[in-house]
Amino acid sequence: MPPPSISRYPVPKLEDLPEDIRARMLEVQEKAGFIPNVFLTLAHRPDEFRAFFAYHDALMLKEGGLSKAEREMIVVATSGANDCLYCIVAHGAILRIYAKNPLVADQVAVNYRKADITPRQKAMLAFALKVARQSVEIVDEDFAALREHGFSDEDIWDIGAIAAFFALSNRMANMIAMRPNDEFHLLGRTPRKSQD
Amino acid sequence: MPPPSISRYPVPKLEDLPEDIRARMLEVQEKAGFIPNVFLTLAHRPDEFRAFFAYHDALMLKEGGLSKAEREMIVVATSGANDCLYCIVAHGAILRIYAKNPLVADQVAVNYRKADITPRQKAMLAFALKVARQSVEIVDEDFAALREHGFSDEDIWDIGAIAAFFALSNRMANMIAMRPNDEFHLLGRTPRKSQD
Amino acid sequence: MPPPSISRYPVPKLEDLPEDIRARMLEVQEKAGFIPNVFLTLAHRPDEFRAFFAYHDALMLKEGGLSKAEREMIVVATSGANDCLYCIVAHGAILRIYAKNPLVADQVAVNYRKADITPRQKAMLAFALKVARQSVEIVDEDFAALREHGFSDEDIWDIGAIAAFFALSNRMANMIAMRPNDEFHLLGRTPRKSQD
Amino acid sequence: MPPPSISRYPVPKLEDLPEDIRARMLEVQEKAGFIPNVFLTLAHRPDEFRAFFAYHDALMLKEGGLSKAEREMIVVATSGANDCLYCIVAHGAILRIYAKNPLVADQVAVNYRKADITPRQKAMLAFALKVARQSVEIVDEDFAALREHGFSDEDIWDIGAIAAFFALSNRMANMIAMRPNDEFHLLGRTPRKSQD
Amino acid sequence: MPPPSISRYPVPKLEDLPEDIRARMLEVQEKAGFIPNVFLTLAHRPDEFRAFFAYHDALMLKEGGLSKAEREMIVVATSGANDCLYCIVAHGAILRIYAKNPLVADQVAVNYRKADITPRQKAMLAFALKVARQSVEIVDEDFAALREHGFSDEDIWDIGAIAAFFALSNRMANMIAMRPNDEFHLLGRTPRKSQD
Amino acid sequence: MPPPSISRYPVPKLEDLPEDIRARMLEVQEKAGFIPNVFLTLAHRPDEFRAFFAYHDALMLKEGGLSKAEREMIVVATSGANDCLYCIVAHGAILRIYAKNPLVADQVAVNYRKADITPRQKAMLAFALKVARQSVEIVDEDFAALREHGFSDEDIWDIGAIAAFFALSNRMANMIAMRPNDEFHLLGRTPRKSQD
Repeated sequence: MPPPSISRYPVPKLEDLPEDIRARMLEVQEKAGFIPNVFLTLAHRPDEFRAFFAYHDALMLKEGGLSKAEREMIVVATSGANDCLYCIVAHGAILRIYAKNPLVADQVAVNYRKADITPRQKAMLAFALKVARQSVEIVDEDFAALREHGFSDEDIWDIGAIAAFFALSNRMANMIAMRPNDEFHLLGRTPRKSQD
Repeated sequence: MPPPSISRYPVPKLEDLPEDIRARMLEVQEKAGFIPNVFLTLAHRPDEFRAFFAYHDALMLKEGGLSKAEREMIVVATSGANDCLYCIVAHGAILRIYAKNPLVADQVAVNYRKADITPRQKAMLAFALKVARQSVEIVDEDFAALREHGFSDEDIWDIGAIAAFFALSNRMANMIAMRPNDEFHLLGRTPRKSQD
Repeated sequence: MPPPSISRYPVPKLEDLPEDIRARMLEVQEKAGFIPNVFLTLAHRPDEFRAFFAYHDALMLKEGGLSKAEREMIVVATSGANDCLYCIVAHGAILRIYAKNPLVADQVAVNYRKADITPRQKAMLAFALKVARQSVEIVDEDFAALREHGFSDEDIWDIGAIAAFFALSNRMANMIAMRPNDEFHLLGRTPRKSQD
Repeated sequence: MPPPSISRYPVPKLEDLPEDIRARMLEVQEKAGFIPNVFLTLAHRPDEFRAFFAYHDALMLKEGGLSKAEREMIVVATSGANDCLYCIVAHGAILRIYAKNPLVADQVAVNYRKADITPRQKAMLAFALKVARQSVEIVDEDFAALREHGFSDEDIWDIGAIAAFFALSNRMANMIAMRPNDEFHLLGRTPRKSQD
Repeated sequence: MPPPSISRYPVPKLEDLPEDIRARMLEVQEKAGFIPNVFLTLAHRPDEFRAFFAYHDALMLKEGGLSKAEREMIVVATSGANDCLYCIVAHGAILRIYAKNPLVADQVAVNYRKADITPRQKAMLAFALKVARQSVEIVDEDFAALREHGFSDEDIWDIGAIAAFFALSNRMANMIAMRPNDEFHLLGRTPRKSQD
Repeated sequence: MPPPSISRYPVPKLEDLPEDIRARMLEVQEKAGFIPNVFLTLAHRPDEFRAFFAYHDALMLKEGGLSKAEREMIVVATSGANDCLYCIVAHGAILRIYAKNPLVADQVAVNYRKADITPRQKAMLAFALKVARQSVEIVDEDFAALREHGFSDEDIWDIGAIAAFFALSNRMANMIAMRPNDEFHLLGRTPRKSQD
């Protein structure tokens, strides 16, 4: 039986890719043990690939008031709202690892109100979901509510921009039927795993 | 009376910007006669600015089966669905100019079914709006319907990717309350203008 | 090339119309320089035409606490919510002229929260949109909120009744595919125009 | 205990009303045995009252391909979609009487698909509900579907216009909290009643 | 003419039913004068029938802070939200009888905000409708709001559980096209009836 | 640190429970190695507990055209639509075990269209989701579509009844903030586990 398709579009072979894109893939493979399908499938369009990951890195690897786990919470919660299988599963795994918490990703993907997170994090996700679903209704009061939880205006930009970026990412994944690597479903689900 | 704010965030001065970003702004100013506010407001975050416009250019300046006017139709229709004032107004102007049609932007922003466009273009916008609103429901039949109108799979990627990119763009604009330049409201509204 | 259809239904010739209806059309033509298509298309049903414009005039030409521009704001905002091309374009033009503001119609049609209008006008439009979208949820607190902005109960009736009337008007226009006159797209878009 | 309020607004006394409005009320009282509250409450604004009932009569008393019962079915179904208590109860009573059917109004208000009506009537109500809820999506195919059931284009105008008129009526009733007369709840509920 | 179908599924004859189920039907027939169709139609699956009515009785016949009329209000309001003809009509009749009020069922099925009920009962129905429509959004504040109206935590369980049980019941009735007995439409509509 | 709360309501101790309920819990504990929280939390109301599990068993343990894994697919898909954390996590685990497939639960909870299941199973889930979300719109054509996939009318009852039962279950879990046992998150996620 052939492996299941990971995209509606052709997936380029590593050896056919531009050098910079192949290098990035090998780097992530070295670190994670496998190449996440988002790299393989988006490489169908090298220029868009480069912009996509430049944007991703600018938002997700940035220093600031949000921890790495918090950034991934935003990804998982808004991907849940957008019903994006790839991002829920892949970023759910990353969230479990960063948070060293095997449960939080499943919680945040379905209902952040009941998740094992702080009130500050719940306020952060409420705003992210408003950006994801009804950004036209954002008003100054939404900013004020976040400042009361200690978020700076730059933090709020981060929250909203991550929600906005994954509005793009979720739609691309759904359009091309991007399939999560099997590995992601299990990663970080045991406390031991996340301590490695 | 001071000019109205164009963003909830500080807008950097041209002279304080990194050279590459300033250069891009001067280039567009040279061409358009003014600097669109999307450049000025997103420059608050130079790395995200660079990724944003690299992505934009990869999708909007690309060769392929879609004309420039058709690409802008997708922007205007999905920005209408997302209630994004900046993109409806700014890209509405660009659409009027590319299409040499002073009416089509207002039509497409509200109801593409009644717009003065071809059945092929209506099918294109129906798909773009599905990506914008319910990407989880995209199925192979949606691709088949577009192929019947002569779109290649690469064209379909373009349609969906533009809709996805403006899902991001619309949310950023709504979050920071990006204000369209006054000039956009009038541009391309007279047949003469678009022929210059 | 024949001119585009302005209705799914036959459009009567001026000379075939009842005298009172023709007189009204000539009057508006004298004033505006052209006959708006809402007159030509609804004249297909003379009795409904008479009731429609009697209702319209009772609400829109009435004295009271709302200015003419404010009444048109309500029309444009609720027509935006109902995705009615004719009313957004035609009443957008009238709003620009009454408000002597070339930008406000585009703003109000998409997102009144960011429009260049007063907090009182934003409260007015919030109520109008509630009547347009979820009138079942109107409660006494909605009236109290408007009174705090200085609206009388008669003003509130006006706001709600205009929203209700255009719930009718928008649906008629969408059903018959009423096309806005080309002239409306451009009217009032330059400060000069509105000062004439 | 005072009788419950029938409107959020003052209800004029019969003797204070303009002669034509009072005459109409007495006429309906003579026929029905009581004055429906829609007359009493809308009389707060005589000019709007006159336009409202002129419009109502033009649509509901008109000759054409739709029976009186069918016109009332449209009212009840769309008022159900708009959650308008007054119109469901008052026009439900009228529908029961015209249709000589004590059950049909309750059925149509909740789910026309299961009502004891013909397939032609179900198609009629499907179109009416589309006008009520998503008029922007009306396309030529909707007209074709109705023509297959034998509706003329003039009949289709009637269906859509009644749905549109009650979009207005329902919103007015909800805004002013119009209360149905107690009598309407019971009228036409026994076969005997409807045969009188 | 044969009587109309009361279910998409076969309806067992009384004599073919298990003894306990037949006994329950005869009991209700003795009391009500007819067998409600929910008994006849669900008896197609005896085990599910037994569980359904055991659940129903545990919630609806229970002692506690809610009166029988209040329990039926919850049923009618949430069945209105779920567009379930059978439950609106059948439980509407029961509500009229328990409340000795011929109007309240029609009111509560469409818009509890305007019904002739107490503020405490309106708070109860607001919570029930939240359980029916958006249970994921229930938060501790919802419980606090009900406690302010004097509801105990056990009462709140009752409110939510009744709303949840009829989420099941409404969906079964809609799936099998359960038809209300004609008798229910008229029951309890005259003050006399409810005083017997 | 105390263990997290598993319900908004008191959770009875095993020794305080009625004998039949305790016996059922011990039985499931014997089999699963732990007592799922749905048992512990619903035992707060013994009569409702008994009816709930009698109903559950009648639907889920029944013989028929649906496999056990297919029944769990329906639970997971509709619980995803209802945003019920407990049921997604707990029944997701059961589905993984029955299907001997560590991926299918995550897929079906988010987007059945892309899951590794058969076209017949996708048709089954499309119907289940219609029962969950818009049961009022169910028509005979929905039944016909399932029959084409080989489902009998009794199978269709099963599909719809499971969706309806979990409409209840999901709302109860959301109302009381039922927390999934930690064990469920990991169960069945490795091929080895499901082969034991």
